[in-house]
Amino acid sequence: MIYKKEIKYLASLKQKKFRLLTHEFVIEGSKLIIDALEHKQPIKKIIYSTKGENFDKIRRLSKRLNIELALCTTKDAERISDTQNSQQIFALLQYKPLMKIDANENTINNNIIVLDGIADPGNMGTILRTCSWFGCYNIIITNDSVELYNPKTVRSAMGAHFHMEHIYRDNIDNIIEYLKKCQYQILAADLKGINIKKYELTNNKWALILGNEAKGVSKISKENAQLIHIKGEGKMESLNVAEAASIVIHYLYKK
Amino acid sequence: MIYKKEIKYLASLKQKKFRLLTHEFVIEGSKLIIDALEHKQPIKKIIYSTKGENFDKIRRLSKRLNIELALCTTKDAERISDTQNSQQIFALLQYKPLMKIDANENTINNNIIVLDGIADPGNMGTILRTCSWFGCYNIIITNDSVELYNPKTVRSAMGAHFHMEHIYRDNIDNIIEYLKKCQYQILAADLKGINIKKYELTNNKWALILGNEAKGVSKISKENAQLIHIKGEGKMESLNVAEAASIVIHYLYKK
Repeated sequence: MIYKKEIKYLASLKQKKFRLLTHEFVIEGSKLIIDALEHKQPIKKIIYSTKGENFDKIRRLSKRLNIELALCTTKDAERISDTQNSQQIFALLQYKPLMKIDANENTINNNIIVLDGIADPGNMGTILRTCSWFGCYNIIITNDSVELYNPKTVRSAMGAHFHMEHIYRDNIDNIIEYLKKCQYQILAADLKGINIKKYELTNNKWALILGNEAKGVSKISKENAQLIHIKGEGKMESLNVAEAASIVIHYLYKK
Repeated sequence: MIYKKEIKYLASLKQKKFRLLTHEFVIEGSKLIIDALEHKQPIKKIIYSTKGENFDKIRRLSKRLNIELALCTTKDAERISDTQNSQQIFALLQYKPLMKIDANENTINNNIIVLDGIADPGNMGTILRTCSWFGCYNIIITNDSVELYNPKTVRSAMGAHFHMEHIYRDNIDNIIEYLKKCQYQILAADLKGINIKKYELTNNKWALILGNEAKGVSKISKENAQLIHIKGEGKMESLNVAEAASIVIHYLYKK
């Protein structure tokens, strides 16, 4: 059972201001919902107008986790949906507000990806997906990066949000201070860096900083990191930041 | 000077059917237009409502190539634009219909990227951009792939369309026949392939096949290619195809 007021609320979460206000967001599609269920994410409700693919699995998992399933109309589903070809099945999730990083609490014991001003939600999502693929489960996002729970980010991350061990959000100065204090080998992707293929890690604990699509990494990142770049041929001004991320993470990945 | 009829025509090119009918498409933004001008693309007209960044450069290049610049209203620009934050400067371009590949005419003398059913225009554009970055200027697209001149493809390719030496379009059977006849070492990205990091090219003339986002590469590609994959950790079902493309092309790139 679902009230009109709830539909209106779910539709409102397409807007950033309501997500930030409520710390809730909507995910869409059976694959993503199953991933969220399997990773025991804080799902408040599942709403659907069509029993699509994998509906039985969703019902079984929801029952076990005591999550309500509510039927809505096709028209309601269209209001909630953020996509053109909606699967018409949604879940309402809560998220924990992202914490600042604290150099006195060394909670992260592994590699870190720093998103230093990433502006495009699709790029952020794709980078998260790549991070999850290679087992990089620690992310720090600068305050000026795009919102982590933007629907496009969530969509292109394909569930990577649910796989992460730590996600922090802070300003770049604090992030650099943290990385230095915790003795990370800091790398930053920059067109003026050295060819990644000529680079060898000397420390197994590394952090990779990826910068804004137009401006690159911030000044303080440049000053405190080993700059690396991906050699190319010259007709193209730059690689997409998500592509650079994939190439560098794959290169550093030891398997 | 620009007529209302022309604005209507330019706006109509957001639709695939009109692009396919006329073999014309619109590009947007000063960077892309400068790239097109510098690569002497068949630009019919440049239309703008705001003299933004680099306008003088555009004017200078257009004059040299005898291309007309026409002023339109902000409202007209909004009608033409396919983006949310339009730079309000556009160019109308012609494109040559893509040719079939002919195994008797061995025109390509270098590596080839085959897009075997790529469905997402953003992915296709990103792959073209990566190809241009690494100097892979030969692309073959299967008939069931997304349209090369889709506005999203053009936008995410960031000018890569203008850098290519050969772009063909054909069915996958003919493509495979061509690659075999021309003695390419054929690779295909597939989850069941061998780890790319364990793989060594034995032939400097290679072709890489990248498949559909949901279904992967087609059956005939699988049967005729060395399958390679990118090792990961297991929480994520797959990597984005554009990320896989970047990683493999970088790995095969010899610099």
